[in-house]
Amino acid sequence: MDLQSTHVYREIHEQPDVLARVLAKERAGAEALAAEIRRRNVDHVIIAARGTSDNAARYAQYLLGAANRLQVGLAAPSLYTIYDAPPRFGNALVLGISQSGKSPDIVAVLTEARRQGALTAALTNFPDSDLGRAADFVMGLHAGEELAVAATKTYTAELAAVALLSVALAGGERMDALQRVPEQVAETLALHEDIAFVAERYRYLEAGVTIGRGYNYATAFEMALKLKEMTYTIIEPYSSADFLHGPLALVSPGFPVIVIAPSGRMLPELKPFMATVRERQGELVVISDDEAALSVARTPLALPAGVPEWLSPLVSIVPGQLLAMNLAHTRDLDPDRPRALNKVTETR
Amino acid sequence: MDLQSTHVYREIHEQPDVLARVLAKERAGAEALAAEIRRRNVDHVIIAARGTSDNAARYAQYLLGAANRLQVGLAAPSLYTIYDAPPRFGNALVLGISQSGKSPDIVAVLTEARRQGALTAALTNFPDSDLGRAADFVMGLHAGEELAVAATKTYTAELAAVALLSVALAGGERMDALQRVPEQVAETLALHEDIAFVAERYRYLEAGVTIGRGYNYATAFEMALKLKEMTYTIIEPYSSADFLHGPLALVSPGFPVIVIAPSGRMLPELKPFMATVRERQGELVVISDDEAALSVARTPLALPAGVPEWLSPLVSIVPGQLLAMNLAHTRDLDPDRPRALNKVTETR
Repeated sequence: MDLQSTHVYREIHEQPDVLARVLAKERAGAEALAAEIRRRNVDHVIIAARGTSDNAARYAQYLLGAANRLQVGLAAPSLYTIYDAPPRFGNALVLGISQSGKSPDIVAVLTEARRQGALTAALTNFPDSDLGRAADFVMGLHAGEELAVAATKTYTAELAAVALLSVALAGGERMDALQRVPEQVAETLALHEDIAFVAERYRYLEAGVTIGRGYNYATAFEMALKLKEMTYTIIEPYSSADFLHGPLALVSPGFPVIVIAPSGRMLPELKPFMATVRERQGELVVISDDEAALSVARTPLALPAGVPEWLSPLVSIVPGQLLAMNLAHTRDLDPDRPRALNKVTETR
Repeated sequence: MDLQSTHVYREIHEQPDVLARVLAKERAGAEALAAEIRRRNVDHVIIAARGTSDNAARYAQYLLGAANRLQVGLAAPSLYTIYDAPPRFGNALVLGISQSGKSPDIVAVLTEARRQGALTAALTNFPDSDLGRAADFVMGLHAGEELAVAATKTYTAELAAVALLSVALAGGERMDALQRVPEQVAETLALHEDIAFVAERYRYLEAGVTIGRGYNYATAFEMALKLKEMTYTIIEPYSSADFLHGPLALVSPGFPVIVIAPSGRMLPELKPFMATVRERQGELVVISDDEAALSVARTPLALPAGVPEWLSPLVSIVPGQLLAMNLAHTRDLDPDRPRALNKVTETR
């Protein structure tokens, strides 16, 4: 199979254009939603999402928390759909995130929120979907149709929409940095050839972990999900702190630990963590723009310099997408059509 | 090594007594906290916890949501300790859960909550710890010293304390069912001999998943953590709904899927899920009190009948604890002292 003719190859490489479109077209939408959040004096956020979109929710938890002082919690959809016992939303923003806008459980959370009079918003690639119609405010992802089953461009588009909302809430100060992201993602795509080589090393990898903390907790989850979906490798994501509270016991010599460690306030926390993995002779894969962090890795994957930490998840997932796709290719798997999965999963 | 002389064997078997103590000694404490929650008209809950205690938080999310209509979110400790950007708590109850009461990141969340004037509470085995002193209300776990590194009796004690709080908030109606739990846990411990036999089958198991949804989402996480800590098996926990949104691709013939499926409102959702796993020839391990659910399992683990779903997590984790301990034993590992771990993990 020719990798470059796959949907997922094309969709990964469309990301700079998709991101530029979201940033251009949804700025006004983000500002309108931000104005309503301020008007209602919303004091916390509840997000309903599944799969890849749940990982975008994890990014929102850190970004809206750190930049906008909003506590972000995740909804438990079964309280709405199975137990018929929805919690009270109080003065929350209830945000649904879904590529298709179709999953009944996510729509159910928004419907109940609206019934209770809470402010509702949706991030979706299909603004005219059930989810879009259930929400007061809708931000589109402008990703075009996503044909590969594993989501790539819609994930980074979701992160960009979250970042737009955060910037709008904070008064627009950090917009310049956000506008540079599409180009930085394009730069990161140049890793493709290196990663094709790296994938050979992990041809027979069966299991491992991804580690990220803070903003890149989301990246650890999303990279693990791509590796599971496209390559059937059992990769479990962790924050470095949670990993030390038990799962560290897994690390034997050669056990692969993929650490997402871009420069910023979290990096000094991750350095002793990486040293601990090395002491235990784990195999370190490091995704970073920091020379010292890369230098301790058996497999370093270098990110472009100059990306602020709060935007790093939009860039640092790209090596993970490329690794999952290339690893599927080394295993003669079709990266576009993972076994057992459909593009739209409807759960209740 | 004689398994019965290990700390973990003794501590697993102490659970009926520990639970009876928590229920007797913390009823008044739960009622006092419930009264203050009502007085302040608290409308959501934020929990700070790590590791096993984080799994008790997952139980609280469903129980306080379904029985008390409280939205429960998890705090992101790094917003407090690394990013110095704590979210606003609004009118929340901020609850810290920690066996030792020592982890600095959990203490930091409570300290900030108190500074903001939010209602704070702690569940801990050491009420005189930093965490206990940082909270307005403290519920003790009455578990005695826990010597095994992997937490067992303090986990179920944490669940019992959460259940006490929920019952107190709802006006005490369901106290009778809660008082029967220690005896039901004692009954479940009789599975030990069967599980010693089952563990032989999984001697060379390297990886798999645990599945639970709703109340037993917590059980899936806690069972996976015990298996990782004590046996170094890579077991990843999922809700059945999240698993269908991608990770289902992992299931090839023989792939082990451990489903926690006690009777109740979630069970009809899990039955088609189990059928899907069987179609894909996964190896089903089922923990249930339902004959039909047990009958589709390659390895059925039967729970006692008569436990209501909202209390089932206190009982359904017991086979998971016994399996992790027995599996460590089949592998000649010391279940009391997992490699790399200490009893108290201090993260910031």
